[in-house]
Amino acid sequence: MAKIVKFKEINKDFDQSMNELYEVCENDINEINNLIIEKLESNVALVKEITKYLILSGGKRLRPLLTVACARMSGYGNRKEERRHINLAAAIEFIHTATLMHDDVVDKSESRRGKPSSNTIWGNKTSVLVGDFLFSRAFQLMAKDKSNHIMKILSDTSVIISEGEILELSVDRNPTISENVYFEVINGKTASLFSAACEVAGIIANLDTNKIQALKTFGTNFGMAFQLIDDSLDYSSTFNKIGKQIGDDFKEGKITLPVILCYLRGNESEKKFWDRTINKLNQKTNDFSDAISLIEKYNCIEDTIIRAKHFSNIAKDSLGAFENNDYKIALLNIVDQSFNRTS
Amino acid sequence: MAKIVKFKEINKDFDQSMNELYEVCENDINEINNLIIEKLESNVALVKEITKYLILSGGKRLRPLLTVACARMSGYGNRKEERRHINLAAAIEFIHTATLMHDDVVDKSESRRGKPSSNTIWGNKTSVLVGDFLFSRAFQLMAKDKSNHIMKILSDTSVIISEGEILELSVDRNPTISENVYFEVINGKTASLFSAACEVAGIIANLDTNKIQALKTFGTNFGMAFQLIDDSLDYSSTFNKIGKQIGDDFKEGKITLPVILCYLRGNESEKKFWDRTINKLNQKTNDFSDAISLIEKYNCIEDTIIRAKHFSNIAKDSLGAFENNDYKIALLNIVDQSFNRTS
Repeated sequence: MAKIVKFKEINKDFDQSMNELYEVCENDINEINNLIIEKLESNVALVKEITKYLILSGGKRLRPLLTVACARMSGYGNRKEERRHINLAAAIEFIHTATLMHDDVVDKSESRRGKPSSNTIWGNKTSVLVGDFLFSRAFQLMAKDKSNHIMKILSDTSVIISEGEILELSVDRNPTISENVYFEVINGKTASLFSAACEVAGIIANLDTNKIQALKTFGTNFGMAFQLIDDSLDYSSTFNKIGKQIGDDFKEGKITLPVILCYLRGNESEKKFWDRTINKLNQKTNDFSDAISLIEKYNCIEDTIIRAKHFSNIAKDSLGAFENNDYKIALLNIVDQSFNRTS
Repeated sequence: MAKIVKFKEINKDFDQSMNELYEVCENDINEINNLIIEKLESNVALVKEITKYLILSGGKRLRPLLTVACARMSGYGNRKEERRHINLAAAIEFIHTATLMHDDVVDKSESRRGKPSSNTIWGNKTSVLVGDFLFSRAFQLMAKDKSNHIMKILSDTSVIISEGEILELSVDRNPTISENVYFEVINGKTASLFSAACEVAGIIANLDTNKIQALKTFGTNFGMAFQLIDDSLDYSSTFNKIGKQIGDDFKEGKITLPVILCYLRGNESEKKFWDRTINKLNQKTNDFSDAISLIEKYNCIEDTIIRAKHFSNIAKDSLGAFENNDYKIALLNIVDQSFNRTS
């Protein structure tokens, strides 16, 4: 695609690309933020306190940005009455945040985006229930949209997300899982909501089936690439801006593609190393640097990035179904620049 | 993986790799061939005539080879009473051949493997019914295996194959389909049976869930790569040994990845070219060479091969779950060498 679409600047980094995506969607994102604040209102003070803490604490708003950018790229949102993308984008951000809250409980995470996680401050029970509150708010926003089709997409997506999380739990600390199973996990965890965020934009824009499929292809494949890049960061990024230190995944015994590949490619004693450190979580001082050495020995970061490239290439090609405009260029850039993320 | 497993010779071509796979599985494949001949017996002379014409006319037996090689790699088949892999491999070859017969009817193909197709000789109705006969024989062989689990896998696979074919029909001559939809088509058409062929081997060998998943990962991803290489051959192979001339897909208006990518990447007038030649099947003398030029302009063969490499890399990595032995080496080689296929 790089040969066809001219990029304004090819070397900008991920944050700059995010800023450009914000800029082209600025009005929409402001409306979304206002709607989010409005919908976090609750008679229950604790709900208000927690949700505001979470949802206003500096997430990238990537998923709602996907919805509004895809909608705008498809010609939706120019007329004053075209506001469905705002509602749906907010619903998608709520689903995402609810998922994060429940994730933190499941993973027993102590921090999220560089701040103490909600379960650390308010406890697990509250976090579970406030997550449910956010899910319900999301479904309220969807109900307001009055489209059975969109309701079906987003509820199906919620099922896929849950199933993905249950699957992830069932392969917890198991470095022997197959790559296809892992792809199913990250499809549930990340790609399915990216996909839905893009698909609903095509539906409200009344696109034909092929173009809606193109948006799904874009979202799914960008999501897969995004998660794989995430996986690689934990073993390669020097410092993670969101406050997550390199090595967190390893310390938690989290299964990601670099570990899966390293296990598959390792000899018997190396497999035993992963069994001890990841499966049994019996870790010694030098284990993380030994892990890095093994991962380097077998090119596992490089190959994780190559797998991510495959998905990102498909994502970028899929936008060939759309005319060039600022939104499309911003979306193509964000896919390219996600490889330059440091967090 | 190439760094880990030592290959005997790295530069051999596909046919040589197939021969080596035959050699390590020679006894099994002879038994499969005998069983196939036995099961083609029918009181209806026409059935016998057609099925023998088809099934004994030089197919590669790749799918049954996958079953027996995966079974043997997993330690199954050494004891005299271990014959399930023979039965199941024959069943899988029957499913494959039945599918080809029905495909030829749907596609109105005139030839198959360099010989007139059965529908050309005996007509569509007969071909449909003899395809059904082969399906039924396959299910008889499965029933003989007496495993509900395997029955479920192979019947689920048959459903996926049918759905894949219906999906393919529904996107017939439509160059605007999304890459994800196309992947669903070729998963149905090719990868799902490759996957089942490998999975059943793991089940009869009593492998643990991870290893069975590894075999599924191997089969699915090898199948995807295999089909994508097939796609590229029609626009790049100088002469196709199975008698299929370069350009057949184009003449039939068949949608393959090179065309999908070329359409996505093309400008308006180039998109019109594909609409006319593929969608409307209104082709002029120089159209095929113009198609080749466009495909070259946008690197569509190269990128189809890169997509295939992604899948083949996953397939090869998945076998890291198994100890090295002759079967594993033969399987790894066949994946590598499928990129050197000319047919």
